[in-house]
Amino acid sequence: MNKEVKNIKKLIVNQSLELDCGKIIKNFPIAYETYGTLNKSKSNAILAFHALSGDQFVTNINPITKQEGWWATAVGPGKAIDTNKYFVICINVLGGCMGSFGPKEINPDTNELFGTTFPVITIRDMVKAQIYLLEYLGIDKLLSITGGSMGGMQVLQFASLYPNKAHSAIPIACSASHSAQNIALNELGRQAIMADPTWNNGNYFKTNLSPDKGLAVARMAAHITYLSKKSLQEKFGRKLQDTGSLKFSFDADFQIESYLRHQGTKFVDRFDANSYLYITRAMDYFDLEKQFNGNLSSAFKNTKSKFCVISFSSDWLYPTIENKEIVMALNACGANVGFVEINSDKGHDSFLLNVPKLLKTLSEFLNSTYKEINNEKRI
Amino acid sequence: MNKEVKNIKKLIVNQSLELDCGKIIKNFPIAYETYGTLNKSKSNAILAFHALSGDQFVTNINPITKQEGWWATAVGPGKAIDTNKYFVICINVLGGCMGSFGPKEINPDTNELFGTTFPVITIRDMVKAQIYLLEYLGIDKLLSITGGSMGGMQVLQFASLYPNKAHSAIPIACSASHSAQNIALNELGRQAIMADPTWNNGNYFKTNLSPDKGLAVARMAAHITYLSKKSLQEKFGRKLQDTGSLKFSFDADFQIESYLRHQGTKFVDRFDANSYLYITRAMDYFDLEKQFNGNLSSAFKNTKSKFCVISFSSDWLYPTIENKEIVMALNACGANVGFVEINSDKGHDSFLLNVPKLLKTLSEFLNSTYKEINNEKRI
Repeated sequence: MNKEVKNIKKLIVNQSLELDCGKIIKNFPIAYETYGTLNKSKSNAILAFHALSGDQFVTNINPITKQEGWWATAVGPGKAIDTNKYFVICINVLGGCMGSFGPKEINPDTNELFGTTFPVITIRDMVKAQIYLLEYLGIDKLLSITGGSMGGMQVLQFASLYPNKAHSAIPIACSASHSAQNIALNELGRQAIMADPTWNNGNYFKTNLSPDKGLAVARMAAHITYLSKKSLQEKFGRKLQDTGSLKFSFDADFQIESYLRHQGTKFVDRFDANSYLYITRAMDYFDLEKQFNGNLSSAFKNTKSKFCVISFSSDWLYPTIENKEIVMALNACGANVGFVEINSDKGHDSFLLNVPKLLKTLSEFLNSTYKEINNEKRI
Repeated sequence: MNKEVKNIKKLIVNQSLELDCGKIIKNFPIAYETYGTLNKSKSNAILAFHALSGDQFVTNINPITKQEGWWATAVGPGKAIDTNKYFVICINVLGGCMGSFGPKEINPDTNELFGTTFPVITIRDMVKAQIYLLEYLGIDKLLSITGGSMGGMQVLQFASLYPNKAHSAIPIACSASHSAQNIALNELGRQAIMADPTWNNGNYFKTNLSPDKGLAVARMAAHITYLSKKSLQEKFGRKLQDTGSLKFSFDADFQIESYLRHQGTKFVDRFDANSYLYITRAMDYFDLEKQFNGNLSSAFKNTKSKFCVISFSSDWLYPTIENKEIVMALNACGANVGFVEINSDKGHDSFLLNVPKLLKTLSEFLNSTYKEINNEKRI
C-alpha cells in the first residue's frame, strides 16, 4: 500500500524505547483514535487492541478504507462498549501501516523508508509503545483493556507488564503463545509475500510495484482460517458463481473462490506487505510462558485486574483449550477470573461479528467493573 | 518440473474418450506401475488410486524421486496389501505429470506442450481413462479398489460407474463432494501458483523459468492441512531451529517454518505446477451427489461391491462426518458396507502413515474378500 495516510492523530514519542531485539527507537510516531469523552476523573477509559489486519479505527467509518471500523458491531453510542459512557482508545500497533512507527515509515538515520531494515518487533514492544499515549492523555488506570486475536495477546501482555494499570481485562479468542499450526499458517502468509518478486526483499517502495499478488494470497490463506468449516459450508457450500454451471476453466466457478479473491484484492488496497511480515512475526514470537521461564501463572502474579476470558466454540485458530490455559494460569495465581465459551458457528471471526452473547458479555462485564469503581469511590 | 520422465510403463490408448467438458481425446498415454503377480484366474488384482500429489509409484523406490513410494507403509511383500498375494496396479491420473496425458504432454494437434490448453478434467474422466488399462491387462473384475483422499474419490466414482467391476471397495479419508473449505484451500493453492509471474499463464515451458515459488507456497498450504493441530504441536511445538534463540529476522526461526519450507522446495522438484491446477480443479468439481440429481444413494444403486469406508478421528480436511455420508448413502441403497473411524492424532496424512489399525483393517478386509471369492469359486 503506497497510499499516504493523512489526517491521522499521532503522538510523537520523544522518549527512547528499547525493543526486545535490543535496538533502541526514539522520536517515533504512534497513531491513534479515540471515541467518546474522557470523564473528569479519567476513570472511564478502555484501551482496545487491534488484531493483525486491524488499525486504530475501531468504529464509525474508517477514513482510509471508507468502510465501518473493525469493531463497529461492539463499539459505539448505546452499543456493548458504549461510547456514551466510556472513552475508547485504540492505537495502531508498532510495525503497523496506519501511521504508527512501522516499515513504511521513514528511517530518520537514512531518510529512506525502512522496509525490512525496520527492527523485528514483539507484542511486548507494541504494548510498551502504547503506554506513552496513556501518559500523554493523563490516564493512570484504565477501566478496561480488551481485544481479540492478536488484540487479546496484547491484553495479556499489558496485564502482565502493568499489573495495576487496568481495573479489568478482557482477552478474547487468543492464546498465551502461538501454536505450531498458527506459526505454520503465518509462515505460509510470509512465504506468499516473499515469493512475490515485486516484494524485492522488502524494498518495493523503491519501484513502482508492490507485492499485491503475494499479499492477496497471504490474506486468502488467513481468511480461510478465520471462518469455521461449518460457516463456510452454510454460507457458500458448492454454490456456483454467475452462470450456474461449471466453466471447465480456472476462473472462479464457485462463489467461495470469488469471495476469497475479493478478500485478497480488497486487502492490498489498505495494507502494507512488509507490515504483514512484521506483525505476523510478532504474533509468532509471542510466548508469555517463556517470558516467565515456563510458568504462565507467574506472568499474572501481581495483577490487580479482574479478568473475563472469552472463547468461541468453533474457533479452530485459537480454540477454547488455548483460552482455558490462560484461565488456568490466572486461577493458579489467585487472580479474579471469569471464563465464557460462546457457542458460535462463525469461527475465529466471531469476535468481530454480531454475536449477541459476546456483546452481552462485554456490556455486562464492563458495566460491573464501572459500578465497582464508582462504589469504591463512594466508600 | 521440466525433468524428462523416462523408463515409465505407458499404455497408449487408441480409443476415443469423451471428457466431461465435452472434448474428445484419443491416442493418449496412461502411465502405470504394477506390483506382485497377476494370478491365472486374474482374480487377485487391486487397483490403488493415488491422491493429489501422488503417482503410480505406490511402493519400493520411486525411480524419479528416489524416495519410497507413497504407500510403502501399506503395500509390499508381507505388508497389509501383500504383493506376494495380490497384484497391485496404480495409474498416474489424467492431468498428472508422471507420464499420463496431462498439461506437460505434447498436444498432437500443435506439436507444442499443452500447458493450460489442456482440457479441464474431472475425477470421472480420470476413472474412465483407467478402465483401458484393465482391458489391456485382461482383468474383468478387480479383487478390490482402494485409495485415500482424492484416491478415495476415485474409488467412489469407479464403484458408481462400474458397479460390477470390483468385488470390494475401500474409500479412505475422502468425501463424495468437496466442502466449501476444501474448495477454498485448493483455490488458495491455485492462486499461489497463478500469482507467480513465471507461471506465465501456464506457458512457463516456453521460458527457462517455472513457477517454483508459487508451487512451493501451494504445497506448504496443503501440507498444513494434512496434519492435525495436535500432531504439529507434538512434533514441532515452538521448537527453535539451529541457535536455540530468536533471530529477530524473517529467517526460519522455528522448526515448523524450516520443515514447511523444505516441504515446498522438495515438492517442486517432482511436480508440475499446471498439473497441480488441473488435479485440484478435478477434486473441487467432484460431486457424486450432483451426478445423480442430488441423491448420493442412487450413485451406488447397482453396486455389487462390498465396501469398507475408513476415516480418521483427527482428519479435519475430510472429517469423519463426510465419510459417514458415504456410508449412509450406501446403507440407503442396501449395499454391503462396513465403516471404521480410526483413532489417530496424525490428521489427514494418517492414511499414508504407519497407523497399525489402518493396516490391520486393510489386511483383514482384503483377506476376507479374497476368501469369499475363492469360496464362491469352490461352490
